[in-house]
Amino acid sequence: MASFISHRQLTVEWGQCDPSGIVFNSRFFEMFDLSTWMLFEQALGVTAHELGAAFGIIGLPLVDARANFLKPAKFGDVIDIASHIVEFRRSSFDVEHKITIGGELAVEGGETRVWAARTKDDPDKIHAVAIPPDIVARFGHG
Amino acid sequence: MASFISHRQLTVEWGQCDPSGIVFNSRFFEMFDLSTWMLFEQALGVTAHELGAAFGIIGLPLVDARANFLKPAKFGDVIDIASHIVEFRRSSFDVEHKITIGGELAVEGGETRVWAARTKDDPDKIHAVAIPPDIVARFGHG
Amino acid sequence: MASFISHRQLTVEWGQCDPSGIVFNSRFFEMFDLSTWMLFEQALGVTAHELGAAFGIIGLPLVDARANFLKPAKFGDVIDIASHIVEFRRSSFDVEHKITIGGELAVEGGETRVWAARTKDDPDKIHAVAIPPDIVARFGHG
Amino acid sequence: MASFISHRQLTVEWGQCDPSGIVFNSRFFEMFDLSTWMLFEQALGVTAHELGAAFGIIGLPLVDARANFLKPAKFGDVIDIASHIVEFRRSSFDVEHKITIGGELAVEGGETRVWAARTKDDPDKIHAVAIPPDIVARFGHG
Repeated sequence: MASFISHRQLTVEWGQCDPSGIVFNSRFFEMFDLSTWMLFEQALGVTAHELGAAFGIIGLPLVDARANFLKPAKFGDVIDIASHIVEFRRSSFDVEHKITIGGELAVEGGETRVWAARTKDDPDKIHAVAIPPDIVARFGHG
Repeated sequence: MASFISHRQLTVEWGQCDPSGIVFNSRFFEMFDLSTWMLFEQALGVTAHELGAAFGIIGLPLVDARANFLKPAKFGDVIDIASHIVEFRRSSFDVEHKITIGGELAVEGGETRVWAARTKDDPDKIHAVAIPPDIVARFGHG
Repeated sequence: MASFISHRQLTVEWGQCDPSGIVFNSRFFEMFDLSTWMLFEQALGVTAHELGAAFGIIGLPLVDARANFLKPAKFGDVIDIASHIVEFRRSSFDVEHKITIGGELAVEGGETRVWAARTKDDPDKIHAVAIPPDIVARFGHG
Repeated sequence: MASFISHRQLTVEWGQCDPSGIVFNSRFFEMFDLSTWMLFEQALGVTAHELGAAFGIIGLPLVDARANFLKPAKFGDVIDIASHIVEFRRSSFDVEHKITIGGELAVEGGETRVWAARTKDDPDKIHAVAIPPDIVARFGHG
């Protein structure tokens, strides 16, 4: 079974670009974050807003983020972001984001996130919990 | 007694500028927000982080923000932000921020904020409360 | 003839919200900027990217921005932004942005911008030029 | 000879934090970008603004960025960023950024950048050029 892929398109905004006229690097990490929320929304059928309550977690804390910049994205460019989960582990997973412009790969991004719940005895703390198999299955894994 | 003025300097960052090479407008509102926190820190002697607990408020919700852009600020420019409270009312106040570059006024900003506490009967709600006279006095007003 | 209104919808992103769980004020000014570009795109039929070349201008420099925050916008909220030009003057104009959430007005924003061209004798400078009547007409004014 | 290290301190801003009260990941990449500019400023004795003209380059395009998030940074936290170049290659180099809070490592960041000049025959293009040995030496390498 193929891994579930979420696509979205967006047009590069003026305010996302730097003086060299291309998207400033931090903006891609904003895009990746939203794309991960949308990937979960589409695969699980709950809004990002309801995700925590629906699955007993407090969120999907990011422990690692990375990006390769292959081609610049300019103001007005229409970009496509394709996101999918490349690997599920016991309580963490890796998301891959591929940004293409006119069919050409422009940015490759990656995130490692944790399936995390609030710790009962100390509500200020969070801890990783096992990802339920039916969640994994909904992404076409497991 | 003169109104207490807080000054800070910063150098314009590459990532704050847009393709025309000047600071993108939303970045000035980020600067104003921080300058207001620092104004309170300096006038009241508590960190922004402690402000809520020290005075029984949940924060200083912004109800109005505005800016006039007179001269552009470019990458590498050293800018000075001078902030003070121009008027205290019962439970709200107006902050003025003046950004100068090389002694010339570049941006004039303004914020209207509320002195707000959490509502006892409904902790999801907040309401405006009277600003204590000794707080007002510490800004050289009242 | 009614003023041309541009609408767009967006869902509030996690990264646009601050620790109180609501959209941080500077993010609304990012939204307003994009909405103005889209308003021009839709009214004039050229992309934001082509706007300068199509009309002999270098852009629409912002000289004044302002916002009233009436109701908070939270993570996951679907917001509608309606933008139109309220007044054209010789070489400047005022844009109004109304953000509604579930039909209720949440933020009122305003921008004053200039129709600007590069100065022939000094390409580092820009100056305001008269807005052509046919541009004004396409927004339902004049 | 030890690698030149640039340090800077900053206090986490309200507007840099997300609804979970911690710095949103994209903000660290903004910090890394500025820290790299400051590292070059301090090692080479020219401002970031003059860097291009002083060394015949158009900038230091980023080709790869990455970060590990070990401990959260909260509103009001005083963070220290220590940046140095871990390796110089012919025309590219790797920067490492270590963010510590109260002496504890919170975020490890890395960037790969290129020493790039405008292409003579096609000023819209840029290409990697060899990094001069005296530049490398000023960072304590080579």
